[in-house]
Amino acid sequence: MTSADISNFPFEVPAFWQEEITAELQEAINEHNTDVSSLLRYHMGWEDASGQPKLETTGKLLRPKLCLLACQATGGNIQQVLPAAAALEFIHNFSLIHDDIEDNSQERHHRATVWKLWGKAQAINAGDAMFSIAHIEVLKLQHAGISARKTLSAAGMLSKACLNLCEGQHMDISYEARSDVTTQDYLNMITKKTAALLATATALGAYLGAVEDKDGRITDRFYRFGEYLGLAFQIRDDILGIWGDERQTGKPVGADIKKKKKTLPVLYALEKSSVINSKEFKEIHSRKLLEGSEVTKIIGMLDKVNARKYTQEKVEYYSHQALAQLEATGIQAAKLAPLEEITHSLVGRDY
Amino acid sequence: MTSADISNFPFEVPAFWQEEITAELQEAINEHNTDVSSLLRYHMGWEDASGQPKLETTGKLLRPKLCLLACQATGGNIQQVLPAAAALEFIHNFSLIHDDIEDNSQERHHRATVWKLWGKAQAINAGDAMFSIAHIEVLKLQHAGISARKTLSAAGMLSKACLNLCEGQHMDISYEARSDVTTQDYLNMITKKTAALLATATALGAYLGAVEDKDGRITDRFYRFGEYLGLAFQIRDDILGIWGDERQTGKPVGADIKKKKKTLPVLYALEKSSVINSKEFKEIHSRKLLEGSEVTKIIGMLDKVNARKYTQEKVEYYSHQALAQLEATGIQAAKLAPLEEITHSLVGRDY
Repeated sequence: MTSADISNFPFEVPAFWQEEITAELQEAINEHNTDVSSLLRYHMGWEDASGQPKLETTGKLLRPKLCLLACQATGGNIQQVLPAAAALEFIHNFSLIHDDIEDNSQERHHRATVWKLWGKAQAINAGDAMFSIAHIEVLKLQHAGISARKTLSAAGMLSKACLNLCEGQHMDISYEARSDVTTQDYLNMITKKTAALLATATALGAYLGAVEDKDGRITDRFYRFGEYLGLAFQIRDDILGIWGDERQTGKPVGADIKKKKKTLPVLYALEKSSVINSKEFKEIHSRKLLEGSEVTKIIGMLDKVNARKYTQEKVEYYSHQALAQLEATGIQAAKLAPLEEITHSLVGRDY
Repeated sequence: MTSADISNFPFEVPAFWQEEITAELQEAINEHNTDVSSLLRYHMGWEDASGQPKLETTGKLLRPKLCLLACQATGGNIQQVLPAAAALEFIHNFSLIHDDIEDNSQERHHRATVWKLWGKAQAINAGDAMFSIAHIEVLKLQHAGISARKTLSAAGMLSKACLNLCEGQHMDISYEARSDVTTQDYLNMITKKTAALLATATALGAYLGAVEDKDGRITDRFYRFGEYLGLAFQIRDDILGIWGDERQTGKPVGADIKKKKKTLPVLYALEKSSVINSKEFKEIHSRKLLEGSEVTKIIGMLDKVNARKYTQEKVEYYSHQALAQLEATGIQAAKLAPLEEITHSLVGRDY
């Protein structure tokens, strides 16, 4: 299945509030300390499988950082918004624990996945526990100086994002068995599966941060900024999964072709049946395991229809749309600069 | 794994507000109508696997009914509390969808389980969607005349119950591989896995229903009522799973012995090693598949240590505790009568 895997991404998310976010996340898990917590701490990269603390953190905390950056840009107080930022990270991680089971992935961040170590039953349940903690966490906004009414709206935005995530994941799984998936189907899917949570991250930061946003205009712009950013981010991941430099991505060239992922370049090529021999393309793509020579052949076909160029143009289009939404907020350019910087970092600095 | 399966239970939950609750549940799922909704409607018993409507409803809606009965007993307005009642039913059903995957159960209510029809990946995700809908649903209290502050507390109680459920499920799964589980371990497990959600159902009904409960005394009593009721209910299910009448339970005598479930009677017998030959008991119990003659032998050992009597006494003890909590609320007996009736119905009318 398709999901932008940050660990393999050739960018660094700046260390904004890394410590504050991590402390909030750790406290949220540790305050309900039971046997299931060990699985969660392992997944988050804070402990090894035997429960020994690890010093490095593995998560880039992209969603909480986007939330806090949006809060800062709209003039909000970071401390008050930390519970929303942490809840977003828990939602992201609950979905990773479940995705790894659904995809049968044995490793994540070069470590065994939760299900690989504890079995699928315990891993499904650990994901559910993480999901529960996310919902407990977001309600803490009310004790951090956010009004009850705003806390309720924030909880609602978070739950709606979760449902979008599930709807997108349902599409993604069902696409695996379908041979008629279009590029538009794919864009609809990643809008829900990837972009909705990034959009909710930036929208929540603005909603909780902005003192004046009576008609919801600022929140809406920040939602659309995050949504476009999410689309650009996911589509760039599709490019890197096929043509990426192994030294940067940690994955060999053609990795996603070998896994037969229905990413945007592949779906685009399938639509260009007049240019390539789509019967042959489909036939190769339908094989159970792809050989190196077949991977090369598929990439050759993608190149023939300029699938890379098409996909790169989509990244640029959505990146520009994202930046245009930011500008349309009317907020001073200096305040928006960190969000522009992170946008460039996520989608590549070369344009 | 152990979980009271109401479909096989020889009792009828009265049809209190069956239509109102069902309408609320259906609206909540249908308002986010996507492809994943079909799996949820199938699971709820409203549609067959091809999406055709079914006329009968299968769920007994125990948790929402307990919630509304508690609301009524404390003088609340049923209409206002319906979103909490529906959210409880969604939480229960999300856990059933995931439990069926975790237990590898192919059937529920004599129908194929969601994972059996759509595969495990889609079923994990469908459970997650149901979980998300539960959290969206509980927030609707604020639009039904409940204050923002109370809506937030209700959402918090629900999320805490979810986390308890996961902690209990973690224990239950880990007990399968352990040979040293005690009756006390078991009681701790079912307190979280079964009793916490029933307790939250009655507590939520009282919390939202009671006009005057400034120190939380009424809510607390109702929580403990539901908790004791849940313990009695689960333990009676353990008795029925071994000694139940097939005509009533739909399961053959000894069904839970055959499945080698670590239920209370079995764990009690294991603790009575001075009376039975516990080495032989453990040896038989450790076999992969139990023959009919072995099931009879195990039941004979349980009878030798009076495990049924011990377990029945636990049911009676917790039932009496439940009723004592109700009485201690100081609410008029006439108002409590429906809750007493449902308690007798759930744990057997014979005492």
